[in-house]
Amino acid sequence: MPIKYGQYTVPKVDEEVNFKVGQPSPAMLPLDYIRKSAAEKFAEDDPNYLQYGDIPGYKEFRVALAGFLTQEYGAPVDPDELFVTNGVTGGLAMIATLFCHSGDLVLAEDPSYFLALRIFEDFKLTCHQVPIEKDGIDMVALEELLKKEKPKMLYTVPTAQNPTGRTLSEEKRKKLVELAYKYDFLIVADEVYHLLTFPGVHGPLPMPYYDTKKEKVFSVGSFSKILAPALRLGWFQAPKSLLKPIIDCGMFDSSGGINPVMSGVVHKAIDSGLQKKHLDWTRGELHTRCKHLMECCTKYLVPIGCSFEEPLGGYFVLLKLPDGVISTELLDVAVANKVRFLPGTSFGKAYAGYLRLSFSYYNSADIDVGIQRLGEAIKQLQAKK
Amino acid sequence: MPIKYGQYTVPKVDEEVNFKVGQPSPAMLPLDYIRKSAAEKFAEDDPNYLQYGDIPGYKEFRVALAGFLTQEYGAPVDPDELFVTNGVTGGLAMIATLFCHSGDLVLAEDPSYFLALRIFEDFKLTCHQVPIEKDGIDMVALEELLKKEKPKMLYTVPTAQNPTGRTLSEEKRKKLVELAYKYDFLIVADEVYHLLTFPGVHGPLPMPYYDTKKEKVFSVGSFSKILAPALRLGWFQAPKSLLKPIIDCGMFDSSGGINPVMSGVVHKAIDSGLQKKHLDWTRGELHTRCKHLMECCTKYLVPIGCSFEEPLGGYFVLLKLPDGVISTELLDVAVANKVRFLPGTSFGKAYAGYLRLSFSYYNSADIDVGIQRLGEAIKQLQAKK
Repeated sequence: MPIKYGQYTVPKVDEEVNFKVGQPSPAMLPLDYIRKSAAEKFAEDDPNYLQYGDIPGYKEFRVALAGFLTQEYGAPVDPDELFVTNGVTGGLAMIATLFCHSGDLVLAEDPSYFLALRIFEDFKLTCHQVPIEKDGIDMVALEELLKKEKPKMLYTVPTAQNPTGRTLSEEKRKKLVELAYKYDFLIVADEVYHLLTFPGVHGPLPMPYYDTKKEKVFSVGSFSKILAPALRLGWFQAPKSLLKPIIDCGMFDSSGGINPVMSGVVHKAIDSGLQKKHLDWTRGELHTRCKHLMECCTKYLVPIGCSFEEPLGGYFVLLKLPDGVISTELLDVAVANKVRFLPGTSFGKAYAGYLRLSFSYYNSADIDVGIQRLGEAIKQLQAKK
Repeated sequence: MPIKYGQYTVPKVDEEVNFKVGQPSPAMLPLDYIRKSAAEKFAEDDPNYLQYGDIPGYKEFRVALAGFLTQEYGAPVDPDELFVTNGVTGGLAMIATLFCHSGDLVLAEDPSYFLALRIFEDFKLTCHQVPIEKDGIDMVALEELLKKEKPKMLYTVPTAQNPTGRTLSEEKRKKLVELAYKYDFLIVADEVYHLLTFPGVHGPLPMPYYDTKKEKVFSVGSFSKILAPALRLGWFQAPKSLLKPIIDCGMFDSSGGINPVMSGVVHKAIDSGLQKKHLDWTRGELHTRCKHLMECCTKYLVPIGCSFEEPLGGYFVLLKLPDGVISTELLDVAVANKVRFLPGTSFGKAYAGYLRLSFSYYNSADIDVGIQRLGEAIKQLQAKK
């Protein structure tokens, strides 16, 4: 089937298993739920929902979203601390526009989400990466850096991090906020995987709950992975003082709110319970896929010297290659074996011996084939050395 | 009725006639057409339209949009020279992000769209304004400026300009492109009113057609005023060399295309002819409202010393006040008389004796009441002096 709507063609397993793809599987896209929600929305009689929309998102939608998040987080969310965005990347762009100048320094984790690093580059920001440990950012290394440099903001993926799957501990969340006040920088927490922890996992609260003085934390969320990417809808959870310069900016004074019609469709999905139903199913489905990927890694890759950490949620497993195997060198051999991945160096310079595997797109049988091919590729590369 | 979806409450005529409002009247929002188009879109069976979308907008939509624009412009539009945006302001933000650094100089017309000036400020750009004449930008003044300063881009509203209603002549369009090559700057043409010229008006082609070397011109269009603002959908028409850095940027690599679901709804509206039907009706309706506003101005304001130019389309009439009347001083008296407008100084410093009247939102009876109140306010202010 030729590509019609998508960003790019994802190959079928007989051509290649592309473990780079950080997208939901088409089987995970809730077409029927979206149809039902859209039909409800477009049955409304007030033409004003087609007008320039309320800038932070119309109040009733923010109330519904706050209710949904309050239930999921198990902690209160104030609708007036929500601002509707068109997703995490749109949100990052807005923060970069309104809070930074070209040349400003931002910090990110090492490794970090590789496209966030590219977005900072697009905005002409300088980015330094700070090493992370099993429980998140190395706070000693961070404070050493803060003594020398003055970043405008720090970008973190606190829960089920991309690419490591690691989660910032509660102690480190508190410490990070303390440092943000001491050294005066913003924390931008990409919490896109927060609601995608596996069933039974109860990690720390999202970052805003550790900022009791309410001055420093933007939490950036998205419907892309809990409902559907094409909706282009997400949210900030942030104190009113940080939302104000966004609400007051020229772009929104001109254009009104972001995606008000899609907000209405998602509003119906929240009110009808379809959002919650899809999210619960998605968490289970991702867990099943992750367990299967880890089983395949244990079976085909651990015996040849690989290791991996078990993520608490999200989309990814970070694989450590056998000593001496460099992921960028492996890639050519892997592609010849009809399997692909994202090399660790995309995320940070210290990760040449790692690669990232996504378990969201392919089904169990395809994952099995892909990991076998990867094992073959590693053996071929080792044999050549 | 309390505000539910909108950016702000527009008063009813008994409270105030707010001629500042540059929005379609609720009576001009095609709720039924959008419903029909959405029902067609959501009946589709391919779940991939809910995936991360094609970055420039999916090809079939760009082909449909190119066909529609080709017919409306009477000149060919290449689908590969289109990029789907979320409207003019989103488009301006993207250009500012990818083509400018903080502190760069941009040029705009004097007077110019006041919120574009605010957007440049949000992006930390310095903006100088260049005077315009009846047929658009004063090219002598522009070249004098270009000899001294090095702008990254020039922002223009070439057709039915906001706020003057003036249209850049064909000769000046050619000259502007010549200067863009000679002094190496981008032209960003906000053509939001190009399709909203009144019935029978045939102005010059949009700006891209004068850039035969295809290196310098972004044309920025929008569905906000030809279909509905809340769709948050617009387009760039630009050469591939200028679209490439946008298509390749980190934000879109991460998020995919802008608003793919809404693109699908508008696609159905184009294919079914509802977009064309609504546009044709809208042009006639705006013309009727404009004629009525001008008749009221002739009846109530010209006799007391005001004058105005007849626009060829768009949403606005720029009113010149009697000598010695300053629009910011008039505003307080006007508000006391239950009428409001946007003072000329919002658009440029030379326009203190002008104000902008929008004819898009209120119906004929309300326009009549509003202009009578404005006449009273002018007389009261003159009597006080």
